[in-house]
Amino acid sequence: MNNIISSKAKIGNNVRFGNFVTVYDDVEIGDNSTIESYCEIGYSNGREKMSLTIGDNAKIRSHSIIYQGSVIGNNLMTGHHVVIRENMQIGDGFQAGVGSVIMGETVIGNYVKTGSMVEIGQFSKIGNYVWIYLNSYLINDLYPPSDTIIGPEISDYAILGTACIIMPGVKVGRNSIVAAGCVLKDNLPDNQIAVGNPNRIIGPISKIKIPGTDQDAYPWRYRFHRGYPADVVDVWMKEEHEDVSKS
Amino acid sequence: MNNIISSKAKIGNNVRFGNFVTVYDDVEIGDNSTIESYCEIGYSNGREKMSLTIGDNAKIRSHSIIYQGSVIGNNLMTGHHVVIRENMQIGDGFQAGVGSVIMGETVIGNYVKTGSMVEIGQFSKIGNYVWIYLNSYLINDLYPPSDTIIGPEISDYAILGTACIIMPGVKVGRNSIVAAGCVLKDNLPDNQIAVGNPNRIIGPISKIKIPGTDQDAYPWRYRFHRGYPADVVDVWMKEEHEDVSKS
Amino acid sequence: MNNIISSKAKIGNNVRFGNFVTVYDDVEIGDNSTIESYCEIGYSNGREKMSLTIGDNAKIRSHSIIYQGSVIGNNLMTGHHVVIRENMQIGDGFQAGVGSVIMGETVIGNYVKTGSMVEIGQFSKIGNYVWIYLNSYLINDLYPPSDTIIGPEISDYAILGTACIIMPGVKVGRNSIVAAGCVLKDNLPDNQIAVGNPNRIIGPISKIKIPGTDQDAYPWRYRFHRGYPADVVDVWMKEEHEDVSKS
Repeated sequence: MNNIISSKAKIGNNVRFGNFVTVYDDVEIGDNSTIESYCEIGYSNGREKMSLTIGDNAKIRSHSIIYQGSVIGNNLMTGHHVVIRENMQIGDGFQAGVGSVIMGETVIGNYVKTGSMVEIGQFSKIGNYVWIYLNSYLINDLYPPSDTIIGPEISDYAILGTACIIMPGVKVGRNSIVAAGCVLKDNLPDNQIAVGNPNRIIGPISKIKIPGTDQDAYPWRYRFHRGYPADVVDVWMKEEHEDVSKS
Repeated sequence: MNNIISSKAKIGNNVRFGNFVTVYDDVEIGDNSTIESYCEIGYSNGREKMSLTIGDNAKIRSHSIIYQGSVIGNNLMTGHHVVIRENMQIGDGFQAGVGSVIMGETVIGNYVKTGSMVEIGQFSKIGNYVWIYLNSYLINDLYPPSDTIIGPEISDYAILGTACIIMPGVKVGRNSIVAAGCVLKDNLPDNQIAVGNPNRIIGPISKIKIPGTDQDAYPWRYRFHRGYPADVVDVWMKEEHEDVSKS
Repeated sequence: MNNIISSKAKIGNNVRFGNFVTVYDDVEIGDNSTIESYCEIGYSNGREKMSLTIGDNAKIRSHSIIYQGSVIGNNLMTGHHVVIRENMQIGDGFQAGVGSVIMGETVIGNYVKTGSMVEIGQFSKIGNYVWIYLNSYLINDLYPPSDTIIGPEISDYAILGTACIIMPGVKVGRNSIVAAGCVLKDNLPDNQIAVGNPNRIIGPISKIKIPGTDQDAYPWRYRFHRGYPADVVDVWMKEEHEDVSKS
């Protein structure tokens, strides 16, 4: 046995460990979770002593680091080399892609998913069912370096495409889409599309059709369900479709 | 001995290991290879049991992870913290820069080289002697999130500069250059240069001269040979130069 | 004890180690330093045998790799998963963010700080008190791939915002600001702001006021002192303010 698991950690039933794992004090890990090799769970920021709670069915891929001081729901899934910092409040079903950095002091809803190498800055607020693709960043310093930190706010079902930058304090509306490579400086209302650097807002998401058809591609939840729990999908299937042709 | 090497792995002659290495079942590693510290070789995606074959002379730098289910040629070289996922077919001489993420289901030719923090998305097709610089991405989802995944195709000798995004299904021609910071939405024919976000195609690669001279800088293989095998360079030196003044 | 510390390493007083640490030969680590878990210190590039000197009070976060062949001052602080390569000359107070890659052959002054996932290319020259934010890159190859490598030069107090690219050989002036998402191809004189891809230079830094006030936000050293030593701040507080209304 080459793992170093604190005797003060509370490990649920049927939790599996890889090799060379470190679990620190005051960590609680839910049932049926997997902590893969070379992970550190309950890492201290060296300033204050805090606990860490991770729900059931977590799958924490190898070489990841999760700090003390957060409460994380069920069904957490990380890629490799992920860092999740302190004082987070994270819902169920959070997925962080390979090499992503989730800075502390952030509130994240349910079933938020990120691609690889994303950074979510401190004091961001992220709703439910948000997608943040590969290499997108939420930043927070209005005139860097400063202590005036204002995180972006991302509403439910929004999509941040590859390599977007969401500027400090900027709000992204419900169902809205920030296209790949966009530097978003303006608030984006509900159901709108932003593109470019600096951003232009080019109209409602109803403009985007599934290629080769006249069917709306967005809101995506009416057509894409892989990886979501049955009860969530059931609500999506039964709800009256939102009118997203204007914001 | 602090390494964990499966007895079901086939390790070639003169293979050296660092410390705290994990090698799983059904891995075959060629002669004269080096697997550095904290690496995981033959990591399972948890869905199916597959083998992994890595050729001779591999140098896998520390903290890297290579999944099961791929066949990788000779002379593999990774930077630190690299992830290479499953079901890859990779030729000889592949180099992946520090922190790069090579997603699964991809075909990569011979002597493809990447900078740091590159991501190659699933179902990409990459020819031979391609350069993909620092922080460039090949993405694949036409209207995310969807199951309509179409990877880009990159032809022989192409160059993707720093922080490019190659959009889903986009083709980059032979010898062509995508400049740093370009978001490439249009197919780029052979021997052409693309710049900007969104891309503009600004003409043939013959426009670029070696600074201070009137010599063509491209195709690069007529002037740059470091790191390529002698037999490959010999062909380049003896071939009639391509006419790249138009595509 | 699961650490592997070379008997040829010189370890200062009160140095603490995490778990599964590797320290190679010819490494000197100053007093009161911390080397966290899964770090490799004194990694060899495999070509030549060199020493590594790290000053006092270093805090090297877990999963980081520091090569042989550098001299690094006091108060080094790295994020997790950082790579610092060979033949570096680095001053006091260097901070490298999570996942950053500091390539070799680079000169870095005092109290330079980077965000996450930065890459500083070989042969860059960086002055004192420079900020390089998240995902910014200093690149160095004029017509890649080539052996004509010319690193950028960044002057004292300059700020490179999130996701900037500084092109090969480009100079950024004292106090100057490169805005988030900028691809900087032109030299930026002292006290100027650059934005966009490709860059536009939009005027002196005196244009930027602290929001809601008519106070200059820049040069930042007259208003932001967190994390700097008292003697440095004292000089800043007492110096006559620079006239930055023109370059």
